[in-house]
Amino acid sequence: MRNILRAEVKNATATQLKKMCDELREEIFRTVSSCGGHLSSNLGTVELTVALHRVFDFPRDKVVFDVGHQCYTHKLLSGRAELFHTLRKEGGISGFPKREESAYDCYGTGHAGTAISAALGIAKARDLKREDFEVIAVVGDGSFNNGLIYEALNSLNILNTRVLIVLNDNGMSISPTVGGMHGVLDEMKGGAIPSEDVKLFERFGLKYLGVYNGNDLDELLPALCRAKEMLKEGSVLLHVVTKKGLGYAFSENAPAETHGISPRISRKAEYAQALGEELAHMAEEDGRIVAVTAAMTDSLGLRPFFEKFPARAFDVGICEEHASVLAAALAAEGMKPYYAVYSTFLQRSFDEIVHDVCGQNLPVTFCVDRAGITGEDGETHQGVFDLSFLSFIPNLTLAIPKDIGEFRAMLRASRTFEGPLAIRYPRQGTEGEIKPIEMGKFEILHSTLSDIVLFAAGERCIRLAKDILKEAQREGLGFTLVNARFAKPLDTELLASLKQKYIVTLEDNVLIGGLGDAIARFYRNDGRVVASFGYADAFIPHGEAGSLSVKYGLDGEKILCTLRSFHARG
Amino acid sequence: MRNILRAEVKNATATQLKKMCDELREEIFRTVSSCGGHLSSNLGTVELTVALHRVFDFPRDKVVFDVGHQCYTHKLLSGRAELFHTLRKEGGISGFPKREESAYDCYGTGHAGTAISAALGIAKARDLKREDFEVIAVVGDGSFNNGLIYEALNSLNILNTRVLIVLNDNGMSISPTVGGMHGVLDEMKGGAIPSEDVKLFERFGLKYLGVYNGNDLDELLPALCRAKEMLKEGSVLLHVVTKKGLGYAFSENAPAETHGISPRISRKAEYAQALGEELAHMAEEDGRIVAVTAAMTDSLGLRPFFEKFPARAFDVGICEEHASVLAAALAAEGMKPYYAVYSTFLQRSFDEIVHDVCGQNLPVTFCVDRAGITGEDGETHQGVFDLSFLSFIPNLTLAIPKDIGEFRAMLRASRTFEGPLAIRYPRQGTEGEIKPIEMGKFEILHSTLSDIVLFAAGERCIRLAKDILKEAQREGLGFTLVNARFAKPLDTELLASLKQKYIVTLEDNVLIGGLGDAIARFYRNDGRVVASFGYADAFIPHGEAGSLSVKYGLDGEKILCTLRSFHARG
Repeated sequence: MRNILRAEVKNATATQLKKMCDELREEIFRTVSSCGGHLSSNLGTVELTVALHRVFDFPRDKVVFDVGHQCYTHKLLSGRAELFHTLRKEGGISGFPKREESAYDCYGTGHAGTAISAALGIAKARDLKREDFEVIAVVGDGSFNNGLIYEALNSLNILNTRVLIVLNDNGMSISPTVGGMHGVLDEMKGGAIPSEDVKLFERFGLKYLGVYNGNDLDELLPALCRAKEMLKEGSVLLHVVTKKGLGYAFSENAPAETHGISPRISRKAEYAQALGEELAHMAEEDGRIVAVTAAMTDSLGLRPFFEKFPARAFDVGICEEHASVLAAALAAEGMKPYYAVYSTFLQRSFDEIVHDVCGQNLPVTFCVDRAGITGEDGETHQGVFDLSFLSFIPNLTLAIPKDIGEFRAMLRASRTFEGPLAIRYPRQGTEGEIKPIEMGKFEILHSTLSDIVLFAAGERCIRLAKDILKEAQREGLGFTLVNARFAKPLDTELLASLKQKYIVTLEDNVLIGGLGDAIARFYRNDGRVVASFGYADAFIPHGEAGSLSVKYGLDGEKILCTLRSFHARG
Repeated sequence: MRNILRAEVKNATATQLKKMCDELREEIFRTVSSCGGHLSSNLGTVELTVALHRVFDFPRDKVVFDVGHQCYTHKLLSGRAELFHTLRKEGGISGFPKREESAYDCYGTGHAGTAISAALGIAKARDLKREDFEVIAVVGDGSFNNGLIYEALNSLNILNTRVLIVLNDNGMSISPTVGGMHGVLDEMKGGAIPSEDVKLFERFGLKYLGVYNGNDLDELLPALCRAKEMLKEGSVLLHVVTKKGLGYAFSENAPAETHGISPRISRKAEYAQALGEELAHMAEEDGRIVAVTAAMTDSLGLRPFFEKFPARAFDVGICEEHASVLAAALAAEGMKPYYAVYSTFLQRSFDEIVHDVCGQNLPVTFCVDRAGITGEDGETHQGVFDLSFLSFIPNLTLAIPKDIGEFRAMLRASRTFEGPLAIRYPRQGTEGEIKPIEMGKFEILHSTLSDIVLFAAGERCIRLAKDILKEAQREGLGFTLVNARFAKPLDTELLASLKQKYIVTLEDNVLIGGLGDAIARFYRNDGRVVASFGYADAFIPHGEAGSLSVKYGLDGEKILCTLRSFHARG
């Protein structure tokens, strides 16, 4: 798409602005259809973003997009339209705001709830530097479930600065927004705004302005101008309602399904589906089983469970910390909770995993989806830290299935398992056999007389190891291949029984603090040679997952070279 | 103190109950004076806890104390009075609720904000099991700043269960409570309760009942009975006001200073004081410097900075996540933020350290106090995980000063340092010299021709290493001693230059994922022998810090044995 000039947005007539919105919507649809990405949230915020660019002066003024997945129009309006076809591709435009990409992206986001805190920090820095610009946080109603938002709101009168918060209320947070705050917002949208809500905002230090149709420029532009005026006196909350997916019937009707679009249609099986099936099956026999999710019922495959056992299924909204404590307490009272969550979002409940779950040694099972390199969403969505931030937590068992069959077996074994358990797996995989599994036991996949043993964990690494084995065998350098399916506890009995001199480890995680470190620790000082492969000490940007995984450390050719060198050393 | 029987609490006359409160208050004062512990919060909640025991039936009914430091009266009333003199001592009564200690402690706490989530989980489990008991969460107003509380409140109507929340409002959260919510609560205490606040609670699914004097049994008991009645219909928030430190003039007048009492008077220097001095000094010359704390201004030594630079000092309440994002955003706009926080509480902002600070490579300095084993507060307050949860985060520099002088030097060096930095240190130490420091560079403290090199980091380990060196020299087994003052990046130049065959590492952190793992990773496969000493893979309970540190892994005698065996192997 051609770059739209700032002057165009500033000087366009109402008719021209609306035409511009149509163009932008079409470009977003076309690009997401080919590159994948966030469709419905971006279709819903075209007018809002155009209005912000019309009324404010970016990059002098600063806008922080909460979560950040709704930033496409902002990117298209800030000199990145000609590159927009590279969206989410390696080296191309990121799907999220990124400081290094553009001066228009003043603050990077990815996880929910940070925008008001960030806007307050930027505004406070402005005051201290005696500069003069406006700061806007665009926050979805889904994030208004997240605790961080309230921590920031509580700070308004402590920090004594001015920000504009645009509450973009579309009733969704991937799944429909839930909970008490959603009820309050819904009531406000209903028409008459209860004066108590307005008063409450005011006592926190915010003037409330709303409710406006955020998809109607005729209504939105004057409202935004008024908000800008009021901002001179203090912080303002502007409440607008938008329609997620607006402009494309399919997306309007199925905003959850079109929240994130994959770049190509894939026929691969999903771990999420297996999770839903297994849990629903187990729950039929076992009344203790409950499921917890933080606003991701569908993406995690829990829909069948929610439909079959509504009384035992809890979507608590984007509240990862609360979900962990809730699960711990349910377990404390004898229930068997499964908390399904993406690896990257699990980071949010680190403290609660440590103290509430593992500190009390409670049998909560974390089903950690999207582990490893996930690809196109980039830095904030890669699941490459979980082995490192979970491995040192006492009492936790940490499982890494090699395929969906093994994942099913682990879930079945978890039912009678008495301690905290995390199972980490990627989005997609192959079905594979369901063989009963004993917690903490590795599996020998291939055995040979060679002096080399290779430990691999997880679908990506097991597949890579098998490919390498084939090639190595062709070259006459076989090795023993072990499925190291527990990062903790290690199968020390098996490890001790292996006498090979050369050890190779593969993991879909950063190297520091991961499986390779654990195995190397076991073999420390006994004269073995250990070579570990996993990801480098870096934030991994967006791109195609397979290509990134090679580039950042899981390079089959380099692993083969290492095997050859071991073989040569004998 | 004698054990008070359940029947006594249930059948006492009003006069007898008041006398019981006096007895309890005296026992708390006497025990904390000798054992150390939380004084003012426990003195303030004597009547409230007695009333809870009078009105409810524990352990059939369940009470969750938020943070948990106010649980002493509960412990005294639940069969633990005769053991109360062992409070916080190794093997004795914990200063926090602990499930393994008593059936009356249904859920362990330690960090703020978890109680409502936990109560909801317990209540939901009750419903699912079709059991019949009441669940109470006792939450201080300080925790009402914490985001987790709002995540839980938002869940009330999702979970569709019944809990009683007792809001214990004393206007304090170690430091005085701050922010918008504090204003709202203050207004409610003012007399006329604004109807909008009541309505808001109601729309979240709570009946509001308040405000009552929580130190007056005549007022409190009927209120609690009424709350219990209302609880049959749905969840209730009972708002009571208590006086922190009540009964002891010194504690009443200085609740922050008497929040946590140390068991013995110590004349050791505090890192916190050095932090305050250095920051205030640097800030005089450097207008970019700002300080952030989450409700711990005094304990972290920031009082002088807050007094001298009120416009650049931010206490955001118990909001560790928000504090991290705020610091990141201030840094994004060119400020130089120092976020001071206890090691254990830093766990709460793990996700924000990863994405907001390090993911954007912003120059935020984390001043991580109370690192290592802290002792008497037990599991939830030991700072033994920070090296493990920080080491794998890309872009972060991780410093461990050997004494207060080196801490000052690191702070001075941080001023012109361009990336994210964490400095971790214990509460107390020795002053020591202030020598200019280069980031990432180790220091050789003692050099000898022996084939052994010992790396130690942090005050406890350097002191231990020096003691060991003296003893070893007496035995004719010298070693080179290196101050490994950066866990990341390692001083690879120095490491590569050392040719000793035997490597010993000491760290005041769990072994998994810590400094020893990092150094071992560097020397992997080059024929060296590495022996690492640090803490075992376990939650470390309360006790005297020095004794615990020996017991859990830093045992000088065992380290000496290792040195002797290396020497013998030659």
